Amino acid sequence: MAQLPDRLLEGYAEFKKGRFPTEQGRYEKLAEKGQSPNIMLVGCCDSRAAPEIIFDSGPGEIFVMRNVANIVPHKSSQDDGIHGTTAALEFAVNGLKVEHIVIMGHGRCGGVKSYISAGDSEPLSESNYIGKWSGQLQAADNPIRYKALNRPDLDHGGLLERSSIIHSLENLYSYDFVKTRVLEGNLTLHGAWFDISTGELEYYEEEQGTFLKV
Amino acid sequence: MAQLPDRLLEGYAEFKKGRFPTEQGRYEKLAEKGQSPNIMLVGCCDSRAAPEIIFDSGPGEIFVMRNVANIVPHKSSQDDGIHGTTAALEFAVNGLKVEHIVIMGHGRCGGVKSYISAGDSEPLSESNYIGKWSGQLQAADNPIRYKALNRPDLDHGGLLERSSIIHSLENLYSYDFVKTRVLEGNLTLHGAWFDISTGELEYYEEEQGTFLKV
Amino acid sequence: MAQLPDRLLEGYAEFKKGRFPTEQGRYEKLAEKGQSPNIMLVGCCDSRAAPEIIFDSGPGEIFVMRNVANIVPHKSSQDDGIHGTTAALEFAVNGLKVEHIVIMGHGRCGGVKSYISAGDSEPLSESNYIGKWSGQLQAADNPIRYKALNRPDLDHGGLLERSSIIHSLENLYSYDFVKTRVLEGNLTLHGAWFDISTGELEYYEEEQGTFLKV
Amino acid sequence: MAQLPDRLLEGYAEFKKGRFPTEQGRYEKLAEKGQSPNIMLVGCCDSRAAPEIIFDSGPGEIFVMRNVANIVPHKSSQDDGIHGTTAALEFAVNGLKVEHIVIMGHGRCGGVKSYISAGDSEPLSESNYIGKWSGQLQAADNPIRYKALNRPDLDHGGLLERSSIIHSLENLYSYDFVKTRVLEGNLTLHGAWFDISTGELEYYEEEQGTFLKV
Repeated sequence: MAQLPDRLLEGYAEFKKGRFPTEQGRYEKLAEKGQSPNIMLVGCCDSRAAPEIIFDSGPGEIFVMRNVANIVPHKSSQDDGIHGTTAALEFAVNGLKVEHIVIMGHGRCGGVKSYISAGDSEPLSESNYIGKWSGQLQAADNPIRYKALNRPDLDHGGLLERSSIIHSLENLYSYDFVKTRVLEGNLTLHGAWFDISTGELEYYEEEQGTFLKV
Repeated sequence: MAQLPDRLLEGYAEFKKGRFPTEQGRYEKLAEKGQSPNIMLVGCCDSRAAPEIIFDSGPGEIFVMRNVANIVPHKSSQDDGIHGTTAALEFAVNGLKVEHIVIMGHGRCGGVKSYISAGDSEPLSESNYIGKWSGQLQAADNPIRYKALNRPDLDHGGLLERSSIIHSLENLYSYDFVKTRVLEGNLTLHGAWFDISTGELEYYEEEQGTFLKV
Repeated sequence: MAQLPDRLLEGYAEFKKGRFPTEQGRYEKLAEKGQSPNIMLVGCCDSRAAPEIIFDSGPGEIFVMRNVANIVPHKSSQDDGIHGTTAALEFAVNGLKVEHIVIMGHGRCGGVKSYISAGDSEPLSESNYIGKWSGQLQAADNPIRYKALNRPDLDHGGLLERSSIIHSLENLYSYDFVKTRVLEGNLTLHGAWFDISTGELEYYEEEQGTFLKV
Repeated sequence: MAQLPDRLLEGYAEFKKGRFPTEQGRYEKLAEKGQSPNIMLVGCCDSRAAPEIIFDSGPGEIFVMRNVANIVPHKSSQDDGIHGTTAALEFAVNGLKVEHIVIMGHGRCGGVKSYISAGDSEPLSESNYIGKWSGQLQAADNPIRYKALNRPDLDHGGLLERSSIIHSLENLYSYDFVKTRVLEGNLTLHGAWFDISTGELEYYEEEQGTFLKV
């Protein structure tokens, strides 16, 4: 049998009698009119970093793409084949016309760790999908970038978690449809980093080129 | 300036003084020990279908991949290049050793709609990323499959939303590392569909080959 | 006839009776013992930015690679074929054991200009060698990088001239033989920018992530 | 810290108070009007062979490409990938419309030596960039060519240093944009060889097919 896992069934029952009734009108309206979120968030799959929880958001507010290590690939790797992150990006920007894109990373990121320790371990499968995917972090794993962060309090993982967010922000500009809307003033890009241990949140401050506490 | 959008800052403040204090111990423990969710969920980016809300789950419970229309691509399209969904899958199954994978679709799915109306409109960008991505639904858009669903109550969109979930479940078997663990009895696959209008939830019942209400 | 251009012959006569006699001993010694410069400089071909003039250096002091726009390509583009800049880099670091590498850019750089105006003009030849070469600047031509420079006094060209130097510094780390020596403390990397109009010199200050006047 | 190396800072201070003031007007004019050198020189990176010193040239006079062993690759090796020397060549000939190209070699060339001794030693790195680059000298390392030089005074290195210059001159003709301008009479090609020990200069005399003292 493949009914749903018990934990999900219990949680759903909770949602149905707890939160849903108070938001029912909103769900109905959103079903009728369609979604029109003005924020897209690219987050990590990590079970400890749920955007809707951290930002206490309701239905209809955030269009959420989640992949391992919250990476926006550079356009040059997306020309052939089918690509989910880029598809979501195109849909959000050109379809939904979101006004903000937030790249959100977080502490103790397993995807970042798997990149850092890649040399010490076997690929997780023969195809090495995660190796190829997290291999994108290489462009961000660079002492010049780390020095520019000017955050001597951080270890390698902490530096790469942040440097990688900046790199994804840069990569967003590789897509003409993003770049155009940013230059027109209709789209703003943001970087955020969530500390899963303390609950603290940092954001990317562009002019200092580093992350500051909210 | 690119501080975070106001709505997110407000929501974060709410989280920080509301939910976080009650779950702080749990966040700290998860930071220390690492995540070990036993469920992976592949959901849609849609702003109305947040898995952690619908399943009322806490930090550390669900590893969540989200892409447009909650699609698991067939292995044959993933051999070249870098691919986020498959990377997340490999990480969850072979790295985190999750015991369940849930493909969760939902009603009024924009990705499904964009596939159905693709002939009637221009691509969203020259690269047509979303067109290529949602083009994967074609294998599920089939009268034989619709008849097997035996759901005369559904329109084209409703049928494809469900048929596509079944197709993604089939695609999971194209990956040896998934197939092996399912056959060993260490991994169970599930399909779910959420009605954003009524809050109802359906699950995929394998033997009847269709979706039933929870 | 292809004797040398008159201007060069005149200049050489000047060198032979002016500077050479005072440095003859040094040239002889260097011929006998071989060169052992401790600085490698990657500069631009530009006729207004001669490193030995700007740094008033004598024979044997600087190993000088010059290409258009003083670019160090990323390793990933150098695996196939033959590549002069990378060959010079390997020779300097592993053969000559230089202790410093300086990437030196300059104002009004024609290579940078040609990249910026590439859309407005025909390629210079069918093969578009300069277009492909200066196309490497794309990774540095990014608003996120420009904002991090925090130099509102600069126009697009001035920003890219500097951002490109930082990018070349990052690219140096893509070569294991460079990275290793830097981490061992045997090699230091530097960025410099020369203003051909005023003679001013700027250097890259790593922690602020920007260029400051010497 | 990565300020500039002390030797460069001292040299720059010398330049700023010595040579710069006397040439300031020229630098300013060149900044305003852009460079228009009528000579391109392809030289070696060697620290003892600075073209601007040897030819006592001022700012704006020579467009200088420098690589190891002053090689112009044959077109056939330049069709794929990105190539700095060819980019500089295209820029000089078709962009700047230089009227002369000088290939300048020199004595005791480390690049030539590394080619000759390649069989006796390990590659300088796993990638063997310098080995691949100086491997281009093979086409010039030929007894027929050495006999035609008719220079019994020279050893293997001395012969190859000159033979290689002739080979690079030949290679220049593999580029249509060079060949065309030479045949039109708008571009002249030259070979030069500098003796770093004695300061002597030789030039390539086409009809005798060898190098003669200036």
